[in-house]
Amino acid sequence: MSDDVQAVLAANQAFYDAFAGGDMRAMSDIWAAAAPVACVHPGAPLLVGRATVLESWASILEAPERPNIECFQPVAHMIGNAAFVTCYERLGGAQGAVLLATNVFAKEGERWRIVHHHASPTPVSPPRPRAPAPDHVLH
Amino acid sequence: MSDDVQAVLAANQAFYDAFAGGDMRAMSDIWAAAAPVACVHPGAPLLVGRATVLESWASILEAPERPNIECFQPVAHMIGNAAFVTCYERLGGAQGAVLLATNVFAKEGERWRIVHHHASPTPVSPPRPRAPAPDHVLH
Repeated sequence: MSDDVQAVLAANQAFYDAFAGGDMRAMSDIWAAAAPVACVHPGAPLLVGRATVLESWASILEAPERPNIECFQPVAHMIGNAAFVTCYERLGGAQGAVLLATNVFAKEGERWRIVHHHASPTPVSPPRPRAPAPDHVLH
Repeated sequence: MSDDVQAVLAANQAFYDAFAGGDMRAMSDIWAAAAPVACVHPGAPLLVGRATVLESWASILEAPERPNIECFQPVAHMIGNAAFVTCYERLGGAQGAVLLATNVFAKEGERWRIVHHHASPTPVSPPRPRAPAPDHVLH
């Protein structure tokens, strides 16, 4: 796996960590500063511009009913100094809704930062994380 | 408007023209040949890879009930040799469903080609095209 692929997947995970942790400072930091920024929350209208997009994230992260979120099966698709990651999201725990997300990234200097998030419902469930293998039993 | 922005918006329109016209040859031509390709049809699972994605478009374009599609309010967001366009889609005529789409483009040589399409329902209606202004009446 190339360094850039690893870095894009790490940036994607940092986005979900900020979301799951309700960490607005980290969320702000992961969004691009210079590149154009947009966002489509599930079933919501398009948001354009860094201030508008981050305002929407502040509302989500500060809400008392902020759901758990987990990212599954991220795949990084590289296009030079840009990339898009497709992944599944599970909201609200094991029985929660499953969404499919497109996250677009741009390389700003040495850092990969998110420029666009588009999430929408999907009928597909990602595979559950594998249970650890049982200990080998000698008998 | 820069040449690249114009070219990206033209490529986006070419994608919708191929869709609306049921033109599989044009649809195949607009998708990237070298860059990684993926697609999320509304409410459907992720598709990855050129062959898989184009197969899905062949099914859609060849279907007898292929809906009309119109693209509204495309906005191009540039990231060097990549770009993403956000736009609204109206399916099935004036009373049809409205979707919000993210289309990601890569510049291959001198051509902008689509690498990813993600469309999902939105509650927002794009504004209707303006009626032509009535003739000025002298009296």
